[in-house]
Amino acid sequence: MLGMFCVRAGSGLMGFRAAPRVRSLHSLPGITVAQIDEEVAKLLALKAQIGGDDGKHQFVLKTAKGTRDYNPKQMAIRERVFSTIIGCFKRHGAETIDTPVFELKETLTGKYGEDSKLIYDLKDQGGELLSLRYDLTVPFARYLAMNKITNIKRYHIAKVYRRDNPAMTRGRYREFYQCDFDIAGQYDAMIPDAECLKIVHEILSGLDLGDFRIKVNDRRILDGMFAVCGVPDDKFRTICSTVDKLDKMPWEDVRKEMVNEKGLSEEAADHIGEYVSLQGGMDLAERLLQDQKMSQSKQACAGLSDIKLLFSYLQLFQVTDKVVFDLSLARGLDYYTGIIYEAVLTQAGVSSEAQNGAPAEESVSVGSVAGGGRYDGLVGMFDPKGRKVPCVGVSIGIERIFSIMEQKAEASAEKVRTTEVQVMVASAQKNLLEERLKLVTELWNAGIKAEVMYKKNPKLLSQLQHCEESGIPLVAIMGEQELKDGVVKLRVVATREEVDISRAALVDEIRRRTSEA
Amino acid sequence: MLGMFCVRAGSGLMGFRAAPRVRSLHSLPGITVAQIDEEVAKLLALKAQIGGDDGKHQFVLKTAKGTRDYNPKQMAIRERVFSTIIGCFKRHGAETIDTPVFELKETLTGKYGEDSKLIYDLKDQGGELLSLRYDLTVPFARYLAMNKITNIKRYHIAKVYRRDNPAMTRGRYREFYQCDFDIAGQYDAMIPDAECLKIVHEILSGLDLGDFRIKVNDRRILDGMFAVCGVPDDKFRTICSTVDKLDKMPWEDVRKEMVNEKGLSEEAADHIGEYVSLQGGMDLAERLLQDQKMSQSKQACAGLSDIKLLFSYLQLFQVTDKVVFDLSLARGLDYYTGIIYEAVLTQAGVSSEAQNGAPAEESVSVGSVAGGGRYDGLVGMFDPKGRKVPCVGVSIGIERIFSIMEQKAEASAEKVRTTEVQVMVASAQKNLLEERLKLVTELWNAGIKAEVMYKKNPKLLSQLQHCEESGIPLVAIMGEQELKDGVVKLRVVATREEVDISRAALVDEIRRRTSEA
Repeated sequence: MLGMFCVRAGSGLMGFRAAPRVRSLHSLPGITVAQIDEEVAKLLALKAQIGGDDGKHQFVLKTAKGTRDYNPKQMAIRERVFSTIIGCFKRHGAETIDTPVFELKETLTGKYGEDSKLIYDLKDQGGELLSLRYDLTVPFARYLAMNKITNIKRYHIAKVYRRDNPAMTRGRYREFYQCDFDIAGQYDAMIPDAECLKIVHEILSGLDLGDFRIKVNDRRILDGMFAVCGVPDDKFRTICSTVDKLDKMPWEDVRKEMVNEKGLSEEAADHIGEYVSLQGGMDLAERLLQDQKMSQSKQACAGLSDIKLLFSYLQLFQVTDKVVFDLSLARGLDYYTGIIYEAVLTQAGVSSEAQNGAPAEESVSVGSVAGGGRYDGLVGMFDPKGRKVPCVGVSIGIERIFSIMEQKAEASAEKVRTTEVQVMVASAQKNLLEERLKLVTELWNAGIKAEVMYKKNPKLLSQLQHCEESGIPLVAIMGEQELKDGVVKLRVVATREEVDISRAALVDEIRRRTSEA
Repeated sequence: MLGMFCVRAGSGLMGFRAAPRVRSLHSLPGITVAQIDEEVAKLLALKAQIGGDDGKHQFVLKTAKGTRDYNPKQMAIRERVFSTIIGCFKRHGAETIDTPVFELKETLTGKYGEDSKLIYDLKDQGGELLSLRYDLTVPFARYLAMNKITNIKRYHIAKVYRRDNPAMTRGRYREFYQCDFDIAGQYDAMIPDAECLKIVHEILSGLDLGDFRIKVNDRRILDGMFAVCGVPDDKFRTICSTVDKLDKMPWEDVRKEMVNEKGLSEEAADHIGEYVSLQGGMDLAERLLQDQKMSQSKQACAGLSDIKLLFSYLQLFQVTDKVVFDLSLARGLDYYTGIIYEAVLTQAGVSSEAQNGAPAEESVSVGSVAGGGRYDGLVGMFDPKGRKVPCVGVSIGIERIFSIMEQKAEASAEKVRTTEVQVMVASAQKNLLEERLKLVTELWNAGIKAEVMYKKNPKLLSQLQHCEESGIPLVAIMGEQELKDGVVKLRVVATREEVDISRAALVDEIRRRTSEA
């Protein structure tokens, strides 16, 4: 096919003529996307011919911006964290699913509000327009609608992608894991919602990350609060985003943003300020249900009743010690329709710096490690007939948890093992490669995790050193004498104790000695 | 910035003028890539304005072409397969690493020969040019060079991406898993190579996929063979690709392609034909070392000696029953430098259709399920000083294995469980939600995998049905009487047997009854 545009590039025609060009294109009714695609392809082919980036090319050995490799030690920590989390999800009866790393671009369109600019698109190489997934929630909703699933309890652990400004020391990457647990289905109010909080409680306790708090609020309470405070309907969302900054900014700055930038009246802002300073439990919900202003909003009342119900279930689940009803919690995402929550790690020992009359024992947040909420409308956005599937879920902020665990491992004396090898098959003498390979085969075939050095005649010292470095607890040493006697010398690396074990008893002896490990 | 090209689109200038335009661009010395980028951006902005695809837009609820979701059942099968494979990798002392799903585009450039056209590129959204990984081997080599690692034994299980023609029923996807095990380091010849084959043998035996064969050859033997058969140096690679088709095409067609398409002399082709029909073990390597022609090639001799050594180690590893030295094995990838191998599943029962004098018991290949080889030059391509790190590895073709396992599960009467729930907490009477939540909390806190229905007053029948459907073996039933007596009625779903267990003994009883499951 031939191009339909004339891209003229003679020097006489070149220059600053972009504006008229774009106008002329705009006013042209007959241009098709296919024609534009063709022009683009030709320009790109030309670019390829010119060669990369104007000859300034230099080979760079790195990973893409905002991403990282995981080395074996990091992987060992990651696997430990995942195993705690997956253990909890399975204890609660969740299945797991997986979805492709990219979705049709249109699947993600209109789900993330302003953040859509952070979506990674794939190059248009012919065929469908694709984008890397931005979270696991939208693919989950697409999966439910596509397969007409009306109830499921599932977890999904996978990487998601955001072209955000990376802050890798604080665990913010462009490629990062999400760990999601969601319950979809039409159920009685607040039971699945409470289970999500129970799960957050179990996971954060199980990972031993120090003290934490789970803040809870409800979108209906926020909206009702905005209404009774006199926020115009069309400002709900933007005022909500400002409220969301309260965990990073003092109230005075938030107020300023509301009034000066968002054009809210001072009176409305002050009303909001009174409410968002409130924290409590079931008692606070009860009090607000009696509040003269708040009780005027049907929405707020529905949310407050549900908060009460939620707390009654949380009591049965034995997790109220960590849960706070906090009216300042807003959360960014558009799709929440009911309960929302966020877990933060708190760290003690900063009370001397506490200001503004905060009680001395008040702990300071070091950042969100889990969050979620109810989104009853998202699946309906994918269903051709708009059929809704109510959902509630939680996402564990695993990258921040990795960072903390890595720092802990760094600080601790305990060495992180990156393999599970139980025994090294070694020899002290030369020309015993064949015997070593025979023995290691016996061990492998018996299911023992074993290693052998890939050298014909390795030194005993280097074999022992490898064990020390990688934490292998046992060495099975063979020499001419042992072969004659039908035994193997089993050495405990930590104590240097050595004992002859008959070849026939070796597997059991290794199992016995490494069963606790 | 303003555009430097004039893209004129008035109707008078439109038409079939692509050819002169491209010529004029070619001959223009001053065009920069930045200028082209700008033009492209403008055209794409215009495309966006015109709106998607010419107004024919319709919302499609699907995954991207060539990709699929995994439902819980498929995930359960996938996890079982992974656990066998990872178990084997760990038994052999491998660590694991992970790398980002995309690499700098230039990292992948020049590594895959003709197949490079199948690489997924990301859209140029400003910043680095990125591509989705095409395999795990190139990122591994990049990782080694970047971190100056000279020896490691690692596995890596992750998805890779190829814009290939999908054939999803045969397990060929655009997004698919690779399961790689590699040994990097300078070691004595053929010891790590033999361990890779041992691993393939263990995995394919462990997965119980039926009989299999592992074909082995060496790139140096192939090159030596081409040399002594009179293939010109510059035709080695292309003739090698043709030889690679021998598992799909009869020799006559392969010969035709060599002679007619690749311009090889008939004599050379016939020489090759004699060699590539040879299969055997260590004896064949010995015979070829005596072969008048073959022994003239130093390269071939080095390869043949190594094959002999390899087989001696394979004997010690007890895997020679499945390994065949096969001179027709070529493998596609450019980067192999020594030993290469490929495992195929064989299926009996097709002997009656055997043709061309093939022996009746000869089995028929149903496709490759693992492959790999030695690549001593790849890491050096990333090292600024070209320092080499010898590597050998194997990749398990997990998607084909998934397909087979799924078919087996489909065919089998045994139901695939998608959760591990041990007990369902149920009640036969109304108004016991609180008691159910209390009990399930006790069980969760004791580490029991337990579920409860999210209904205030579920019917006993629907609670029991859920157990039948999802394979939950036990039900803990509570009623007023049980609560008074301090017991729980424990029901075995399969036998309908019911027994009262004291509340204090319940956790132990559930553990005891589900410990074999």
